[in-house]
Amino acid sequence: MAHEFDEQTRRQLQWSVGYAIEHVPHYSVLANFGGSGWIEQLDQKVFSSLPLTTKGDLRAYPMLAMSAVPQSELVRVLATSGTTGPAVLSGETANDATASAETIASAIRQIGLAEGSLVAVLHGTDRLADAQALQRGVVRAGCVAFPLSGDLRPQHLDQIVYGAVQCICATPSQMIALHDAMGRAGFDPRDTALEFALLGGEPMSDALLQWIERVFDIAVADIYGLAELGGPGVAMGQGPLTVTPHRFLAEIVDPDTGQSLVSGEPGELVLTSLATEAFPVLRFRTRDIAMRQPDGPNGEQRISRIQGRLDDIVELRGERILPTRIEAEILAIDGLTPHYRIVRLRDGDLDRARVEVEGLAGVEPLTERLHGQCSDAFTVQLVEPGSLPRSTGRMIRCVDVRGC
Amino acid sequence: MAHEFDEQTRRQLQWSVGYAIEHVPHYSVLANFGGSGWIEQLDQKVFSSLPLTTKGDLRAYPMLAMSAVPQSELVRVLATSGTTGPAVLSGETANDATASAETIASAIRQIGLAEGSLVAVLHGTDRLADAQALQRGVVRAGCVAFPLSGDLRPQHLDQIVYGAVQCICATPSQMIALHDAMGRAGFDPRDTALEFALLGGEPMSDALLQWIERVFDIAVADIYGLAELGGPGVAMGQGPLTVTPHRFLAEIVDPDTGQSLVSGEPGELVLTSLATEAFPVLRFRTRDIAMRQPDGPNGEQRISRIQGRLDDIVELRGERILPTRIEAEILAIDGLTPHYRIVRLRDGDLDRARVEVEGLAGVEPLTERLHGQCSDAFTVQLVEPGSLPRSTGRMIRCVDVRGC
Repeated sequence: MAHEFDEQTRRQLQWSVGYAIEHVPHYSVLANFGGSGWIEQLDQKVFSSLPLTTKGDLRAYPMLAMSAVPQSELVRVLATSGTTGPAVLSGETANDATASAETIASAIRQIGLAEGSLVAVLHGTDRLADAQALQRGVVRAGCVAFPLSGDLRPQHLDQIVYGAVQCICATPSQMIALHDAMGRAGFDPRDTALEFALLGGEPMSDALLQWIERVFDIAVADIYGLAELGGPGVAMGQGPLTVTPHRFLAEIVDPDTGQSLVSGEPGELVLTSLATEAFPVLRFRTRDIAMRQPDGPNGEQRISRIQGRLDDIVELRGERILPTRIEAEILAIDGLTPHYRIVRLRDGDLDRARVEVEGLAGVEPLTERLHGQCSDAFTVQLVEPGSLPRSTGRMIRCVDVRGC
Repeated sequence: MAHEFDEQTRRQLQWSVGYAIEHVPHYSVLANFGGSGWIEQLDQKVFSSLPLTTKGDLRAYPMLAMSAVPQSELVRVLATSGTTGPAVLSGETANDATASAETIASAIRQIGLAEGSLVAVLHGTDRLADAQALQRGVVRAGCVAFPLSGDLRPQHLDQIVYGAVQCICATPSQMIALHDAMGRAGFDPRDTALEFALLGGEPMSDALLQWIERVFDIAVADIYGLAELGGPGVAMGQGPLTVTPHRFLAEIVDPDTGQSLVSGEPGELVLTSLATEAFPVLRFRTRDIAMRQPDGPNGEQRISRIQGRLDDIVELRGERILPTRIEAEILAIDGLTPHYRIVRLRDGDLDRARVEVEGLAGVEPLTERLHGQCSDAFTVQLVEPGSLPRSTGRMIRCVDVRGC
């Protein structure tokens, strides 16, 4: 984020803040936040002092009460997946839906997918918001949307293998499960018409992205979003992610203090909508961890790929470790697969963690790397290939059995 | 169906037959079916002698090979749910999608739902084709689509109860499961904002329809379709179903001989597309059982609600019984619930069937009715409330354990 907003961002922010205050009861208390006329004087410093919005704030209101428009102006209501608590409702106007579809369409054009390509969307039951938005984007890009559910029944596999699917939208862990299912069915994952994958919904290490690119022989781009903000389309890219210009403003804050981080250190991604009609949000805490990256050539905001979620940090004897760091270590070792999970345990008063990973060899080198890079409190256990659960959507990588 | 086509139907049929022959390899063999110029002379008699198309025919071709347009002209590819074998792919052009959405929108307007109403779509993973089409229809009718998956997690229930949902799209068995889930959660199903349900995807007896209307205090309309024909929107209505004019032609045939039935007796519904661009079908055997009904006031074709599927007929000592007939008998008895299943058994050389039903009383009167109305080969077994599986989509009502 530039030290000061450029003029267009400042104008859009003024609009969005004023609009939210006028139309959303939760934000109306900000009317006199900075004295009279404070929105006209909105600058970086004043903006950074606005209170953060949390998922808990959204949950505190009756359903749809965070909407800035009457229900009759919505075209669609979406619920978050509710993986970490009760679902939160969001929704969109026809303009919001069009803007979101156009953003996704531009991502599809950017990866170089030809018009008329078949794009399978694997997001299922638990990711309906994403599935909907992605399909509209696919159609808008002149491609053909092919909704499949995430449970990868044999007929879905056939359709990916024989159905000439050129691009797949999924979570990273669904790609791992797909690779596994193809192997079991005797298909070579490199021997399909697949050229691209648009992945999102889960943190992914560089190592996993490269593994997916290699084993499928495809190019992977990342598409980031949240149901609360209209689904995918908040940021996307191959490599660093570009925050969608004129639609979202990104900040990285220290999750403990809420202070903006201006350097490139990891922190919590905080998003503000700049043009959303139905459910505007100001400084929304995503609980996702990312880093600022240098701006793009036209001044676009850039952030790193999502490194993890605040909820998933493994805190081990003072050290805070993200599962993606462990994932990267696993994928650096021959003989190990990306099928893994992290089990939190307690020995007496001491916390420790066991990394369970499917493979045929590699315990010693992985243990060595984890002790050297992360913490001595890790142990590694090889488990039988096929024994860990497969992803049908979002994968739970950390299991905490300390209370058991 | 009128004894002879009216002029508009004849013209549309000529277009559709000619179009299918020209663009779909499977139908190209019909080019010389009735001698030169046979399409110009197409009448009821010639049409009824065209070969029937089966799901097996569709499966015999590589994926998308039944499409009449190049892949680049499709906007969406849909797979059938694959509940009775490998999935079949279908798809739609932008025009097909618009026509289908308009049909569904008109059904929504007809039931009297106010613009801006929130319409929850419960079709999940196994009914993606339906879910997509219904949502587009909802938006086109000026209402707000609210996709929910069919697994009825507590947050979904909350959203239906507190989220001011006015209409629900679901299968009949999902409504039974919803009633049950509300009861367990302590909600009164009559105490919601629900006014209407648009149900489809499963046969439903009049008795079940009335049960649903009563326990939820809502009006129920039926919306019928098949993924092979673009999803819901083939026929709909409260009471008899109106076949969508200018889009589909319906026949009822004897499932054993394939001969058209002109009287009102039950037979297999056979459908021909009149305007479909992407996947036209001629005389497609749906395997669904229905009856002809008198034409509507403007000559619209009408059929009964779907009575059952050919695959689900319980043949018992020469008697062919549809599960909906048993369902009706169950719902006529106080103390029984619509949670039931039919288990096929063999005693030595004799086939019999056990009706398992959740309830507190009613074995004797139900046994008496089934013996009187259906067959002596039925036994009835009360099972504990909550012990039978709940529907998350399409419910399997018949279990065959004769080979076990």
